[in-house]
Amino acid sequence: MTEPLRTGATIGILGGGQLGRMLSVAASRLGFKTCVFEPGSDCPASHVANFHLKADYDDHAALERFARSVDVITYEFENIPTAALDVLEAITPIHPNRRALATSQDRLTEKEFLIGLGLSVAPFADVTDADSLRAALNSIGTPSILKTRRMGYDGKGQARIKSPDDADAALAAMNGAPAVLEGFVDFQREVSVIAARAQDGSVACYDPGENVHRDGILHTTTVPASLSPSQRTDAVLIAARVLNALDYVGVLGVELFVTRNALIVNEIAPRVHNSGHWTQNGCAIDQFEQHIRAVAGWPLGDGSRHSNVTMENLTGDDMDRVPQIAKTDASLHLYGKAEVKPGRKMGHVNTVTGAAT
Amino acid sequence: MTEPLRTGATIGILGGGQLGRMLSVAASRLGFKTCVFEPGSDCPASHVANFHLKADYDDHAALERFARSVDVITYEFENIPTAALDVLEAITPIHPNRRALATSQDRLTEKEFLIGLGLSVAPFADVTDADSLRAALNSIGTPSILKTRRMGYDGKGQARIKSPDDADAALAAMNGAPAVLEGFVDFQREVSVIAARAQDGSVACYDPGENVHRDGILHTTTVPASLSPSQRTDAVLIAARVLNALDYVGVLGVELFVTRNALIVNEIAPRVHNSGHWTQNGCAIDQFEQHIRAVAGWPLGDGSRHSNVTMENLTGDDMDRVPQIAKTDASLHLYGKAEVKPGRKMGHVNTVTGAAT
Repeated sequence: MTEPLRTGATIGILGGGQLGRMLSVAASRLGFKTCVFEPGSDCPASHVANFHLKADYDDHAALERFARSVDVITYEFENIPTAALDVLEAITPIHPNRRALATSQDRLTEKEFLIGLGLSVAPFADVTDADSLRAALNSIGTPSILKTRRMGYDGKGQARIKSPDDADAALAAMNGAPAVLEGFVDFQREVSVIAARAQDGSVACYDPGENVHRDGILHTTTVPASLSPSQRTDAVLIAARVLNALDYVGVLGVELFVTRNALIVNEIAPRVHNSGHWTQNGCAIDQFEQHIRAVAGWPLGDGSRHSNVTMENLTGDDMDRVPQIAKTDASLHLYGKAEVKPGRKMGHVNTVTGAAT
Repeated sequence: MTEPLRTGATIGILGGGQLGRMLSVAASRLGFKTCVFEPGSDCPASHVANFHLKADYDDHAALERFARSVDVITYEFENIPTAALDVLEAITPIHPNRRALATSQDRLTEKEFLIGLGLSVAPFADVTDADSLRAALNSIGTPSILKTRRMGYDGKGQARIKSPDDADAALAAMNGAPAVLEGFVDFQREVSVIAARAQDGSVACYDPGENVHRDGILHTTTVPASLSPSQRTDAVLIAARVLNALDYVGVLGVELFVTRNALIVNEIAPRVHNSGHWTQNGCAIDQFEQHIRAVAGWPLGDGSRHSNVTMENLTGDDMDRVPQIAKTDASLHLYGKAEVKPGRKMGHVNTVTGAAT
């Protein structure tokens, strides 16, 4: 446990996308400066960060400069090269810790970790070649889904297998990368819990949100989720168990499939999460400030929900709807991305639907 | 009426203090970049703005560069030199407009403007020398207060006159600047209305807040204010009358003295206002975003109040209380100022005291 950061300290953020942008804004509320490390120019976070260090993750001199210029390091994405982390961590503390990153960077490691905690996951099997895929399909069956162990997000690095005939194409889609075959879960709904853990070990979980995806990308999150009181409690306890097991500091996203009998962990993300954006308009302290508080060694803030909210992602041409949305009572959050591409997350809109129920 | 600014456009902000900082953050929510013009280094707004143009207000080449690099210009303080405004306005539109600035930069002009609208102000008289001060004291009496016509804020440029014996000292305190003698108003409370007007002329007023000052500096603002329904309506109508008369675009602060029989306008500020900081935790769209929406030619957002809030300014050594405040359910907003000075505004804290009543 280090001393809490004082106002005026600088928080280093790896990654300059919208999550880094909103983390920077939250850090500013607490009087912190931010320095963003991001190879891309004109990235969303650079618009609001005090510094943008534009360099590649294999530029170790730049990484050293970055680490020396900040008081603590955090990140907005989990796929940070291990060698870069080695350079950074030798100089400045990183939160959440390396174990959280190592666990969530690899689907196989993550599933084995979750099982070790006594949590439920979808049936899965390690796949390295045609033989192991065949064996996996024999045990798990179809429909199922083949996913690269590493570097997948927003539906990328995934191939659905409807029948054994799809096996070869699915394996080819992995481009030789180690993979995991996952059985489909017949779920009623998907929810996620955004949870935070401070350096003193205290935990605060936001109310679970209910997610709807479209084309593999999160489309809406709605709070409250349709859960029974016991499901709600269980969801929060699962998140807390993961946080404590990892000796985690910061905000973590846990995606859960809700079936008739169980809550099955789909995946964990060691960072602020798209399904927690509703907290910006539903809570006094949103997930971004909660994360900054944790990594800065501060106490967690008030994450209780004061409103019912629906968050909708704005991707690609959804930006054409912004002038109409601006006329409503909804709250827009745009990321300042210059280029609109199909499926690209351009912003989100939070609609408060009433006082919390 | 110009076209609404598109996401990715740049808003120029004159002044780099905490108001510019919070305006920059609000602009980022709507996908805008900001460029801050401010002579000081490491100013609060520079931490979150995309660009900081560090130059003096008499550097006309820098002003031109600034005006050419932004799509619209706004400001966080009213005491901008006229020559600078001439340079800027020849290149890029400024909101709120020059008339709003000219009116509020000069206490005498402002009072005459308000009287012209049929609004009540405290008794006042123009003071240029010892003779005019003597005449003014004869008509207004004591206690009264002598204020410089221009450049006063947070109690600066003011001298109280308890008896005619204080006249010479008060006049000397003006340093030869033109002044106004104001009679004391025996008020029950001071409230302020934060009001916004869009480019299409639509007006939205926040609920009035009740202000308590300490040593001439705002200490707390509480919503709801203790006002009768008719006082509440009158306060909002006064603000709307001022906005419309000035063909105003942006957010305006109107300070009112509440007496037994009247609402007396103390002063107007053509900008976001300290007494409107509670909106950050009391409304979906806060005063900063409302101002950005207006100057960007967007529709105004939802400024209805969802919570009761008390805002407390943190000045000087109040910063020592931050670790304690961080443990509570309150929302901190710190300005990242490196140097703590007595009376210097370092941040504020919003405490939600319940759902709106």
